Amino acid sequence: MSHNIIFRVATHTDVPSIVRLLADDELGSLREKYENPIPESYYSAYELVDKDPNHELIVAELDAKVIGTLHLMFLPSLSFQGGLRAQVESVRVDTHHQNQGIGSQMMKWAMERAKDRKAHIVQLTTHKSRADAHRFYERLGFKGTHLGMKLSLD
Amino acid sequence: MSHNIIFRVATHTDVPSIVRLLADDELGSLREKYENPIPESYYSAYELVDKDPNHELIVAELDAKVIGTLHLMFLPSLSFQGGLRAQVESVRVDTHHQNQGIGSQMMKWAMERAKDRKAHIVQLTTHKSRADAHRFYERLGFKGTHLGMKLSLD
Repeated sequence: MSHNIIFRVATHTDVPSIVRLLADDELGSLREKYENPIPESYYSAYELVDKDPNHELIVAELDAKVIGTLHLMFLPSLSFQGGLRAQVESVRVDTHHQNQGIGSQMMKWAMERAKDRKAHIVQLTTHKSRADAHRFYERLGFKGTHLGMKLSLD
Repeated sequence: MSHNIIFRVATHTDVPSIVRLLADDELGSLREKYENPIPESYYSAYELVDKDPNHELIVAELDAKVIGTLHLMFLPSLSFQGGLRAQVESVRVDTHHQNQGIGSQMMKWAMERAKDRKAHIVQLTTHKSRADAHRFYERLGFKGTHLGMKLSLD
């Protein structure tokens, strides 16, 4: 599959497009607010992410339009003899561009970034209800060895 | 249960005690190196963690001895309307002090820290084989809604 896709670090002007992708999803629609203008809290979070060298908010751009995103994090840790971990959060591909290998290209690109920065592992969690996502990550080599647990503080 | 336990941010001199706890565990013993002196890589990782305000490496101290540890991380993110996430990694209690409520006290202390810093969620993953851990976190209010997936880059 050949796509003229650019993967790059997001800029301030990409924030509304990223929020659109986060909200356009069964689970995301329940917790995001994609409106015009988008809530200021998204920009505040973007500033925190952007200024932290351990965070890389990534977008996939096709024909000057943002059609995918993921958030790549680098987590220093004592475990694994002090090995750096990479973590992937908030992976989304535009519904009109799904099943075209774009998510896979984007993940492989992120996995290369993680290797370049000497991470020894990439970790992520995905909701138990997302069976398609489980198969997608398994095809990329991920193994579902862990239970992901969450506690809401709200 | 009443214990005279202090929870505090770890210092450089705690690193060997933390590594001892990480290694003294069925899965940890396969990947850590607790020897004298401990490998330098643990200290390098400690420095990265210590200088990053989004990371808090915590120890539990009883009678001037480190008997527990956890690594609390704060992760800025655009998702959930730009809400801050807290993540807990590398939770250990000394085998001689388990089942005395110490892990629970330590986790509750960390959950309060997360609330103080306005995190909206605490997340963690635990190996599927750790059934005791699943029940432990469920008693604290965590829900095992996610599949935790890992990919080794080594």
